Amino acid sequence: LNSRLPQVGATIFSTMSALAQAHGAVNLGQGFPDFDCDPALIEAVHAAMRDGHNQYPPMPGVPALRQAVATKLQATHGQAYCPEREITITAGATQAILCALLAIVHPGDEVIVLEPCYDSYAPNIALAGGVLVRVPLDPETFRPDFDRIRAALTPRTRALIINTPHNPSATVWSDAEMRNLADLLRGSQALLISDEVYEHMVYDGQAHQSVARFPELAARSLIVSSFGKTFHVTGWKVGYVAAPAALSAEFRKVHQYTVFSVNTPVQLGLSRYLADPRPYLDLPAFYQRKRDHFRAGLAQCRLRLLPSEGSYFQCVDYRELEAGRALNDAEFCQWLTREVGVAAIPVSAFHADKQDQARASQDKIIRFCFAKKDATLDRALALLRQL
Amino acid sequence: LNSRLPQVGATIFSTMSALAQAHGAVNLGQGFPDFDCDPALIEAVHAAMRDGHNQYPPMPGVPALRQAVATKLQATHGQAYCPEREITITAGATQAILCALLAIVHPGDEVIVLEPCYDSYAPNIALAGGVLVRVPLDPETFRPDFDRIRAALTPRTRALIINTPHNPSATVWSDAEMRNLADLLRGSQALLISDEVYEHMVYDGQAHQSVARFPELAARSLIVSSFGKTFHVTGWKVGYVAAPAALSAEFRKVHQYTVFSVNTPVQLGLSRYLADPRPYLDLPAFYQRKRDHFRAGLAQCRLRLLPSEGSYFQCVDYRELEAGRALNDAEFCQWLTREVGVAAIPVSAFHADKQDQARASQDKIIRFCFAKKDATLDRALALLRQL
Ligand SMILES: CSCCC(=O)C(=O)O
Ligand SMILES: CSCCC(=O)C(=O)O
Repeated sequence: LNSRLPQVGATIFSTMSALAQAHGAVNLGQGFPDFDCDPALIEAVHAAMRDGHNQYPPMPGVPALRQAVATKLQATHGQAYCPEREITITAGATQAILCALLAIVHPGDEVIVLEPCYDSYAPNIALAGGVLVRVPLDPETFRPDFDRIRAALTPRTRALIINTPHNPSATVWSDAEMRNLADLLRGSQALLISDEVYEHMVYDGQAHQSVARFPELAARSLIVSSFGKTFHVTGWKVGYVAAPAALSAEFRKVHQYTVFSVNTPVQLGLSRYLADPRPYLDLPAFYQRKRDHFRAGLAQCRLRLLPSEGSYFQCVDYRELEAGRALNDAEFCQWLTREVGVAAIPVSAFHADKQDQARASQDKIIRFCFAKKDATLDRALALLRQL
Repeated sequence: LNSRLPQVGATIFSTMSALAQAHGAVNLGQGFPDFDCDPALIEAVHAAMRDGHNQYPPMPGVPALRQAVATKLQATHGQAYCPEREITITAGATQAILCALLAIVHPGDEVIVLEPCYDSYAPNIALAGGVLVRVPLDPETFRPDFDRIRAALTPRTRALIINTPHNPSATVWSDAEMRNLADLLRGSQALLISDEVYEHMVYDGQAHQSVARFPELAARSLIVSSFGKTFHVTGWKVGYVAAPAALSAEFRKVHQYTVFSVNTPVQLGLSRYLADPRPYLDLPAFYQRKRDHFRAGLAQCRLRLLPSEGSYFQCVDYRELEAGRALNDAEFCQWLTREVGVAAIPVSAFHADKQDQARASQDKIIRFCFAKKDATLDRALALLRQL
């Protein structure tokens, strides 16, 4: 069988979760909470099922949920999106990004990604027949390097994928960086896919600089987000795309032939739950407390802490450790899982190219997820302190 | 914006459901039940949510659900599929078919469809970069014409999509037809995508001839099915793919970068519900009663009944009607919805090519869905009797 994705194996997330389970390790690898969602959200979904809302919803999503998303975007970013024509509910952010690419990329079109980046982007671009153009983030700070992005832009650039708050580095793009991006794209035909799944996890009083806040960028953007991340239900697989009507129309053509539509009772439950903004307004404080607690613990370990401005990730450099000197980041994560009992994700896995991956694996940076119960974080910290 | 799917608008199903709603018509168009699922299934999903199963499931699906599918395939078709490596849970059948195509079709590969067929096949093939090869079913009987299929097979044929029980014609492939297909494909490299979403709706004591029953075919097949159709929950968007390990491995590579995984509590609920085979074993009798009731009523209308061997569809020829003489099938469905108050689907919509569509629209055949409460069917019949 001649594979369409010859490079691809199981994702690093599946691999590390399986290894964590096999070794009974504390799983700070794959990005998901180990605590539960608000019972009110479960009851809202249950009520929708019990009330008989179990058949196909409208293809672009349940109207009430699209309205709730538009209201949220207006309230948080002051940008009006038309729920009827500009918001589409998706089977999670991964489906949204694949469909965005399938909708806009023609075979041979170039798509720029800023590496390290989420591991689905490159295979998604391949499946859309696009040409992957890898631009590194600054290797020290993980911030966008606009000179490099400018150098990569060509008339064949169909799209650029950005991601803020950033997975894996936990950086958050500033207002100035967003304006730089707008300047840079002015005059180009490139579209923007903005992965904002950690939109509600930004710390230290900073604001998430959604593409929605920059009309010039918003006009060329598909914004992708995830209810799973925001409401602690990563297993429900539901997200959304906000984009101008013309882009949304193309997105929906592909969406309707990818999944047709998304779980009806989950959509109705979410639409009711979103009536109260507190669950997402309270999220930064909720996760900042976890971040601070986790960082305070890590500060007592022989690991160098990188900044964590947003997302629920914390990267560390382990080169000071004895074991760290011998092992690249993938080997170190295996060792940490097996021998120490804490699973993490090697940052090199966020590079598509084998050579880049090899180079990045010598940067000796790994990612922890702190979306965990305090007790879980404390168990991990106790183990990490022994390093 | 240069569209990837320039031919595509809203699907006929969305269009007719919206028209039915606008005119308060009885909706026998889009294929979904208007009655509810078993409350036990809802409670099983609710229990899974309440028990805290709300985070990412394993990428290929919850093990218990994969095991339940393997058990069902063994019990109903005597074919062993390995739950670990050969069953994958999908976000519905549409996602399964797109991902199957993305996984096996290389740009320029030919994919044969037998028309009329489900409307997602052609755009899915286009998105995978494949070349659509349209082969008509017999225009009188809607049965496969093996001479035509043989003539369409080339060394570039990457896949053939079949669908039994068939949407829209409600034909069911016989054992002899399946053997003919096996004979025909012997020696070819072509893979088979077998859309079996109506697998549990076969009437008059016939058996569904799943590809799983024919080892020679099964070895080259991705079998696609839908829990939504089987358990009256089309809005839950969950199905499965059964395929030999090598094909499943390629399928999963694409699946993991399309949706990553599928709603956890729905999977767990279904796995518990499937412990009892009666809900699907009882389905043929349940729907046959509806079919017989609906056909008896239609026999009193000025519509010629076509056979309905399986699926929950019933096609009729309306050419004897006054209005029918002037209107093609799409126009007739509009008229029927607006003026008579019953929505149906024009069979010409199951052709990808505009010219074929125009030709088929003169066959004056429309499709009703009888997955409805008896009261709904009776309301429709009362209106249709006035024709
Ligand atoms: C879909 S598994 C990956 C979850 C995640 O977003 C991450 O760990 O980066
Ligand atoms: C996804 S909407 C179409 C439902 C269906 O299978 C049909 O009506 O043919």
